[in-house]
This record gives sequence, C-alpha cells and structure tokens, in this order.
Amino acid sequence: MITLIHAHPYPARSRAVAALLAAVRDLRNVEVRSLYSLYPDFDIDAAAERGAVGRATALVLLHPLYWYTTPALLKHWFDTVLTKGFAYGEGGTALHGKTCLWAVTTGGDMHAFSESGRHQYPFATFTPVVEQTVRYCGMTWAEPFVVHGAHQIADAELADAAAGFRKRVQALEAT
Amino acid sequence: MITLIHAHPYPARSRAVAALLAAVRDLRNVEVRSLYSLYPDFDIDAAAERGAVGRATALVLLHPLYWYTTPALLKHWFDTVLTKGFAYGEGGTALHGKTCLWAVTTGGDMHAFSESGRHQYPFATFTPVVEQTVRYCGMTWAEPFVVHGAHQIADAELADAAAGFRKRVQALEAT
Repeated sequence: MITLIHAHPYPARSRAVAALLAAVRDLRNVEVRSLYSLYPDFDIDAAAERGAVGRATALVLLHPLYWYTTPALLKHWFDTVLTKGFAYGEGGTALHGKTCLWAVTTGGDMHAFSESGRHQYPFATFTPVVEQTVRYCGMTWAEPFVVHGAHQIADAELADAAAGFRKRVQALEAT
Repeated sequence: MITLIHAHPYPARSRAVAALLAAVRDLRNVEVRSLYSLYPDFDIDAAAERGAVGRATALVLLHPLYWYTTPALLKHWFDTVLTKGFAYGEGGTALHGKTCLWAVTTGGDMHAFSESGRHQYPFATFTPVVEQTVRYCGMTWAEPFVVHGAHQIADAELADAAAGFRKRVQALEAT
C-alpha cells in the first residue's frame, strides 16, 4: 500500500501536478489523499492521516514548489501529523523503514535554479528541508522526482514525465 | 517602522521565542503581529498583512524552527501575502529594498546540526528556503539571528541572547 499525499493549493490551475496524479490514479494499492480538498480550512484530521501513513509501505509527496518548499497545508501536515511519539522520539517508530518519494514540480526552468538564475541556487540546495524531515522520521529518502518548467513544458514532455513518475511509483509498489 | 511577524504555534509553551519577543516589545516603531493569535484558523487577512509589511522599512520574522523551516502558518503567510504583483513579478515591488531579519530558535544544540548529529546537516543548510524567499521579493537578507538549544538554554544565556536580539532590532530601526 502506497499513500500519496497530494497538495496543490489551486487544483483547477494545476497542469503538471494534475498530469502526474492522473498517471498513477488507476494503480491498485495507491491511496491518494488530496490535502486541499480534504482540509480546505487547514483543519487536518491527524488521527486519520496517521492511519493512512501507518498502513502504507511507502509514501509519496506530490506538490508544486511554493516558495522553495512545500505548500503551507503540507507543511501543516508535517507539523501536526509527524509528531513526537508517532514519527520520532520515544515510541515514534510508525514510519521507520518506509520509503518516501518526493515528487515536485517547479515553475522555473533548470537555468532559473542556478547561481546566475533568478532563484540563485541549484534546485538541490532547497531539498534538505524536506529530505531531513523524512529522514528524521526514520524513512528512506528516495531520489526526488522533479519536473522543472511546469508552466511551459510541452504536452509531449509532460506525458513523458508522467510516464516516468508512474514507473517510479510502481517500483515503490514492488518493494 | 519595523514589522515583526511572530509565529509560534503554542505560545503557552514558548520560552526562547517569548524571551526574544519580550526584549523588543517596548521598542517604539516595532509593530508585532502574532500570527497564531491573529489567525488561529489560518484565515489570513492578506490585505491587512500587505499593509503592515508595506508601511515597514524592515521586517523581522521570529519563530521556532519547525521541521527545518517556518511553522505552517508562517509558510501560509508567505504563500498568501507574498504574491505576484505585490512581492514579485510585474509591479511587485512593495518590499524592494527593505531589510529582513530572520530570528529563529531551534531545539537542537549546535552539534545536532552537523554531519554526525541527529539533524545530519549544519544549520546553514536549511536557511536557503527562507533566505531566497526574502531575496526573491527584493529584500536585503540580514545575517540570521539564531538561538540553538532553546529547550535547555540557561536563563542567563537566554537573557544575553534576548539582549543581543534587541540590539539587532534597534540597528534595523536606525537604518
């Protein structure tokens, strides 16, 4: 069982994330939890979320990059679901050994994420916040799945990315 | 005028952030906005927040580190207040030239933030997410003010830190 946490603040405007999500919707054993639909008022049901990640063998986080990290509701999910005694600390072993795949889309192209680009740093500079959150909970950090240039990517290229994402999720299923 | 954005999810449990906040409360020209008191339901009044940062000459962000970055409500503030046309993009020059001071407390001591520590990375590895958010809005990034070991820091050491913070904020006032 894979739990996929989907966090897009404006689903109606979503193109790249929507394509990735559509590519895995039919997979058996993938439970999709769309946080902005479930909790439009940020009132996260932490017990339900803990149940969903607890019964999963792997976790997928799927979202657009917002201010260099997760959208706020996914951050709120980290803050309220990944608590001491569940995700870390004494007795906090619920997530130990599960694999987590971070799937993220960005509006900027590769060049934007460089010293001379408008984001001033390579994309990898921004990954440790999410990576170390995952690792601190005892999960295995998979190679992130990143789609850059989500606003301008051609349909064919996006379809390729979606197919690649499907393969990555299927590989998680197999483990 | 300095706008200080204070974000502590559990003010009653706050010690280090509370001490820093207390150290600048009496300063003239410092407007404190406590996000978790103003918006317990995450229903941020973006217009009011834009007014507050727009009339400031400098901005202070004060919060405990939560999962290696800001608590969720401050992330929601970034997502909803720092929007295109206000903070960046065409016409988005409202914050240009203002200085931003990031003041953050961490539960881990310095060693925890190292390759052999439980956070696996030096603290500076986690700064680019907030730093580049600030810079992308055309603000000047000041040297962050960081208090480590907030849970176990001695009263005297915390008092020193609070005095140091007050000086940093006063220096912003003078610019």
